[in-house]
Amino acid sequence: MEGFSFERLFELLEQNRLKQLRDELQEWNVVDIAEFLQELSVDKLLLIFRILPKSLAAEVFAYLESDNQARIVDSISDSELSYLVEELYVDDAVDFLEEVPASVVRRVLASATPQTREVINRVLEYPENSAGSVMTTEMVEFHTRFTVKQAIDHIRKNGVDKETINTCYVINDHRKLKGVLTLRQLLLAEDDTLIKEIMTDDQQVISVTTHDDQEDVADMARKYDLLSVPVVDHENRLVGIITIDDIVDIIEEENTEDLEKMALMTPSEETYLKTTVFTHAKSRILWLMILMLTSTFTAQIITGFEEGLAAVAGLTACIPMLMGTGGNAGNQTSTLIIRGLALGELTVKDYFKVLWKELRVSLICGAALAVANFARMWLLRGIQPAGLETILVVCAAMLVAVVVAKVIGCTLPIAVKLIHLDPALMAGPMITTIVDAVSLILYFALAKAWLM
Amino acid sequence: MEGFSFERLFELLEQNRLKQLRDELQEWNVVDIAEFLQELSVDKLLLIFRILPKSLAAEVFAYLESDNQARIVDSISDSELSYLVEELYVDDAVDFLEEVPASVVRRVLASATPQTREVINRVLEYPENSAGSVMTTEMVEFHTRFTVKQAIDHIRKNGVDKETINTCYVINDHRKLKGVLTLRQLLLAEDDTLIKEIMTDDQQVISVTTHDDQEDVADMARKYDLLSVPVVDHENRLVGIITIDDIVDIIEEENTEDLEKMALMTPSEETYLKTTVFTHAKSRILWLMILMLTSTFTAQIITGFEEGLAAVAGLTACIPMLMGTGGNAGNQTSTLIIRGLALGELTVKDYFKVLWKELRVSLICGAALAVANFARMWLLRGIQPAGLETILVVCAAMLVAVVVAKVIGCTLPIAVKLIHLDPALMAGPMITTIVDAVSLILYFALAKAWLM
Repeated sequence: MEGFSFERLFELLEQNRLKQLRDELQEWNVVDIAEFLQELSVDKLLLIFRILPKSLAAEVFAYLESDNQARIVDSISDSELSYLVEELYVDDAVDFLEEVPASVVRRVLASATPQTREVINRVLEYPENSAGSVMTTEMVEFHTRFTVKQAIDHIRKNGVDKETINTCYVINDHRKLKGVLTLRQLLLAEDDTLIKEIMTDDQQVISVTTHDDQEDVADMARKYDLLSVPVVDHENRLVGIITIDDIVDIIEEENTEDLEKMALMTPSEETYLKTTVFTHAKSRILWLMILMLTSTFTAQIITGFEEGLAAVAGLTACIPMLMGTGGNAGNQTSTLIIRGLALGELTVKDYFKVLWKELRVSLICGAALAVANFARMWLLRGIQPAGLETILVVCAAMLVAVVVAKVIGCTLPIAVKLIHLDPALMAGPMITTIVDAVSLILYFALAKAWLM
Repeated sequence: MEGFSFERLFELLEQNRLKQLRDELQEWNVVDIAEFLQELSVDKLLLIFRILPKSLAAEVFAYLESDNQARIVDSISDSELSYLVEELYVDDAVDFLEEVPASVVRRVLASATPQTREVINRVLEYPENSAGSVMTTEMVEFHTRFTVKQAIDHIRKNGVDKETINTCYVINDHRKLKGVLTLRQLLLAEDDTLIKEIMTDDQQVISVTTHDDQEDVADMARKYDLLSVPVVDHENRLVGIITIDDIVDIIEEENTEDLEKMALMTPSEETYLKTTVFTHAKSRILWLMILMLTSTFTAQIITGFEEGLAAVAGLTACIPMLMGTGGNAGNQTSTLIIRGLALGELTVKDYFKVLWKELRVSLICGAALAVANFARMWLLRGIQPAGLETILVVCAAMLVAVVVAKVIGCTLPIAVKLIHLDPALMAGPMITTIVDAVSLILYFALAKAWLM
């Protein structure tokens, strides 16, 4: 399937053989149809969308980008729109409504049935990135009294509209979540068994509440290998589920967010190309500014030592190398620690184990770098003048800088986690700025003690 | 469920009330039982593992860490081991065998039935990180001739041992993959329908071959929202499946690997704490060394301009700030581009769009930073002496450095992708080192033209 091209489709479109194009498209996966539509001009997109069979069109709609979704809503009739809204899963409808202009939202909600409207509105109201905001309400629910046969008949009657039937949820008269039942358990059991005898019961059911963070939902699904996670309200009443396809999206979203934070940018929800120049600039400038102003300290340190730098050949030339190596060494450590904390492989309690490991690793790395640097400076002393004592100072400073960088690189993310901030902030750029100042101070202190 | 503690279990263990402990554990999720066992000393772990009901013990085994798995294998009898091996899914057995010493592998394979041994051996032979190496062979297969009733009966008879029954695969006499059928499609169809009439047929089936990279499998599952991906050999014969829980693990593994590459470390498969000091040092030192040696160029640039630096107050003091800001600006851009490429949101073809966007973003950021820096240097000129002309040179260099950094930050990852290397290598540290040299040259050129 991979690597096919849209060529044949473009050909059919160009020759205006729409009926044949439609037949061809029906053989395709909805995701690929959506990708094909995204490549078209707006009027062609609308044309093709409207010739697709209605239920296929609704499936494809969920995979289109929000600007095209809005255009489609603008172009179709009220009855077509109302069909579309009812066909969409609640989570897809909400994803789409969160991105489009208010006028589109109003028209969509107006064409929904009162029941659908109420559900969509409820989900729209949950805080961004909460479990409630990403859940769907189309799940299969059984009453605790059901037998296996009743349950299977229930699925046969109601299952078509549900987002998943692989995992079904068992509730009591008060809609409280009492258990979970997989389709596999059902199918492997006898017809007249009571489902409460075979279900996984509440003690063992993993659930989240509507206001839990989506990241916790993803962590839980990953840890327990779940295909869907039930969402309950504060009284343990079942209100929705989050399915694994959405959880995979959450995982990628959270990973992207972590990366952006690590590069000290304000995370954005949009893709790179969709984000405007101004938004890009805004999300990047704050931290660039803060770090630039912080370098006032490094400037002050150098100013205070300017005479020393002028007096001894080779000292100034080594500043970038020392700072660069320190920054890189600290960045490696902080990256490992931040990732370990995010995946739950490390906790705050592991700090001393981590510190002890980093101390030893940094001594090995620092010593190797110092030796290599000695060789480099000695061989190049013809074109980059530096006396033996100066070279030794630089090498000692190198060793110290690497050790300090790795200690800072493992300490800050854990410290920040301890006070419940996001460790991702303590990544490369932040660590580098701090390590720069500290290693300069130590470098100059060594130089003063040894050379002056 | 979240946030419970193991306290009660520890209590029972201390009081040696093993029967009660066992009853208690049986109410728990296997993942939590494994977590509890991981907390115990080796002899307690072996003790508790052996009092668990056999099939529960086998499930828990799959979630233990490899050192504990090896200890358990060492401590149990041949017949217990043989039961354990047959109970494990092939992918879990392979995961475990890839981590433990060869002596353990030999004993495990010796106690497997010839059939199981052959399957495990075949999977063990696929290259690391290939689809074949992570697949499981326990899937439900139907023959194209089956009716819905036959298919459901087949599941009822054979389904218990399969890793998933949610998606079933349809093959012909030659084991060629002809279609895919979900349990939902089966359940919603009439008993005497032929499955080939309701299945999704080969044209639309998404599959991978045994030698495809696991990253491609994950991308495909994410794109098409699949719960499992069929793995075929070069003649399109079905040999295994990869289920979504493993795909989630692959996604996290690949994300970790990208992060480690971005911090210029050799990626490791083990967790932070399990990796030895020596391995940590080895995975970090290569790039630190290369980047340190590269800074020979920056040193040379400074050496060549040492007289100029000594003559004009304030020039040297601003070196770290310029380099730092340039590095940070480049790092932001390269992070966004690398992530965009990894998620498929950006392709090599988008380069000129990206470049145009970055040019505008960098002008806005650079100008704002230059202005802020002017204010800073002007206000601080009492303690960090610098003439007006010097300040203007630094501000101009700042603007230029930011623009150059962002251009390099978007160009290099895409260039590296173009020649089929991993864009993640062109992240922060690498970009910083290159931006350092370029921005120093431009800084000194400006200073020479303006101040000398």
